[in-house]
Amino acid sequence: MTIINKQILLISRPEGAASAANFRLREVAVPELQDGQVLVRQHYLSLDPYMRGRMNDAKSYAQPQALNEVMGGGTAGEIAASRHPKFKVGEAVVGMGGWQQYSVLDAAQSGMLRKVDVQRIPLSAYLGVVGMPGVTAWYGLVRICEPKAGATVVVSAASGAVGSAVGQLAKVRGCRAVGIAGGADKCRYVVDELGFDACVDYKAHADSKALYQALKEVTPEGVDGYFENVGGRVLDAVLPRMNAFGRIALCGMISGYNGAPIPLTQPQLILQSRLRVEGFIVSEHMEDWPPALKELGDLVASGKLKYRETVAQGIEAAPQAFLGLLEGRNFGKQLVKLI
Amino acid sequence: MTIINKQILLISRPEGAASAANFRLREVAVPELQDGQVLVRQHYLSLDPYMRGRMNDAKSYAQPQALNEVMGGGTAGEIAASRHPKFKVGEAVVGMGGWQQYSVLDAAQSGMLRKVDVQRIPLSAYLGVVGMPGVTAWYGLVRICEPKAGATVVVSAASGAVGSAVGQLAKVRGCRAVGIAGGADKCRYVVDELGFDACVDYKAHADSKALYQALKEVTPEGVDGYFENVGGRVLDAVLPRMNAFGRIALCGMISGYNGAPIPLTQPQLILQSRLRVEGFIVSEHMEDWPPALKELGDLVASGKLKYRETVAQGIEAAPQAFLGLLEGRNFGKQLVKLI
Repeated sequence: MTIINKQILLISRPEGAASAANFRLREVAVPELQDGQVLVRQHYLSLDPYMRGRMNDAKSYAQPQALNEVMGGGTAGEIAASRHPKFKVGEAVVGMGGWQQYSVLDAAQSGMLRKVDVQRIPLSAYLGVVGMPGVTAWYGLVRICEPKAGATVVVSAASGAVGSAVGQLAKVRGCRAVGIAGGADKCRYVVDELGFDACVDYKAHADSKALYQALKEVTPEGVDGYFENVGGRVLDAVLPRMNAFGRIALCGMISGYNGAPIPLTQPQLILQSRLRVEGFIVSEHMEDWPPALKELGDLVASGKLKYRETVAQGIEAAPQAFLGLLEGRNFGKQLVKLI
Repeated sequence: MTIINKQILLISRPEGAASAANFRLREVAVPELQDGQVLVRQHYLSLDPYMRGRMNDAKSYAQPQALNEVMGGGTAGEIAASRHPKFKVGEAVVGMGGWQQYSVLDAAQSGMLRKVDVQRIPLSAYLGVVGMPGVTAWYGLVRICEPKAGATVVVSAASGAVGSAVGQLAKVRGCRAVGIAGGADKCRYVVDELGFDACVDYKAHADSKALYQALKEVTPEGVDGYFENVGGRVLDAVLPRMNAFGRIALCGMISGYNGAPIPLTQPQLILQSRLRVEGFIVSEHMEDWPPALKELGDLVASGKLKYRETVAQGIEAAPQAFLGLLEGRNFGKQLVKLI
């Protein structure tokens, strides 16, 4: 029986903002499995801001996504067929299956496929709070910001997959957690549902000075750790609130992903406040994944770590959902449901 | 016998660039010593870029210099009179005597006064390479840049008191040392006399792009550690040359000390190259002074660490010499000879 697999390819690189025209849907037959391979029927595709960087050809930390090939991406699904003794039909797995309904994967290749326990934690969470975004939050907070109990931690894109975990992990550590998010709804969610101490709506403040003032009101003792997902005027607003010896984990700067300049207005504050500013990519710190996933999984299973998902339906919806993510139209982790 | 003491006071704060009008000379009689006090006849006054920050009233890491009081500053001299058993007339001491010919100091107060060995090392060097600027170089290089043998280290203001030590300490550690300095004379000195591998004249390159290109030619394997004294377009030029996981020690940003904006054009490079950028003040790391002074002293005594001084004559010359320092007119450590 021939299985038809719908895939999304990258067919051109954006000039400025990404658009739907950069992508194309293709239908191909799933090939016969070779020895050692498995066929995964994907249930969820993860959409993440880092993918925007891979659409460019520029030398960056991420390899550019090849043109006319299936967009790469994290996936969660079930084994549909197996020619590898360790994987059985029906088992739940996560891996890098790409933007498509079915993936043929070499099961022996390290890191390609990981079995997950869907009794304890929902499958989709392995693409979010108990997956790469959750570990990203954990690493930047625990390894770079290193906040002590009583410290004030601020995170931008606070309702997103990464940001929401940053603030909740900070609360677990006895910190004051303050979010920055776009819109009153997101801010309400961050405080009322996620338990942050406060959240500032950056859309309600026209420039970095106004945003600074709003932030000042909710960080009366300054900011000790800042987890940055946005950059630009948000970073300009937070920098003057940093306490001496504060730490800034640079995880993302989504405000500049379309090529707009995002200068840092007052870099001298890094010196004046003796800050440490550090960029990181979570895939370069694999040694921290096991302790991070352990804590994140335990917290999710016990209901202490909450998350929200925006789920688009069907692989055809992936490009539009991704463009929405880049503009902040999602609310929490952006997924595409593929079944 | 009454001794007349000439002092320089700060009488107003600069708006924009500092000027001679911000200072005033005063002559006062040296008071009688109290028990526990010593009188130091200063031989040298140290002039340092950090003093510009103290002239402002702004909240910064340094306490503002009080108006109508003697400008603070490091000094080296000899005990002229003593009412403390540990200090004898004629002994050489360094301390924070300020911009004046004589200082009455409370000898018991920790850190006010330190005896130094002028047989092994010239007195003036204790204000430079074997003093605060030398330890500054050591801390930023050893504790923040942490270069391995074979790494490339770049330092701006490379012919200055701090920069010249940074490059030579990097060479001792088996690194490639590249300087950035203003003018062909300074660059020649940095390479021919100090033994740097290369030096780029920032005045010969109109903008950060041209400076980047010049730097690229002398850093074929990129830059692993950068010691920043200047900021502005110099920092903009170095940032794109940084290798993955590079370190930047922010020690000074003299290009912005007069209040001119010095935005960092591409802060996203900190993320893309996973850099660590850290500001520091050497006086907050007293635990590192003993090992630093030990290494610096040994290297100077054995002739392996070279330095150069620009010496203005007489306390009256201090304001102009300081303004020259801020404009890079000095060559090496800026001192004022007071006797």
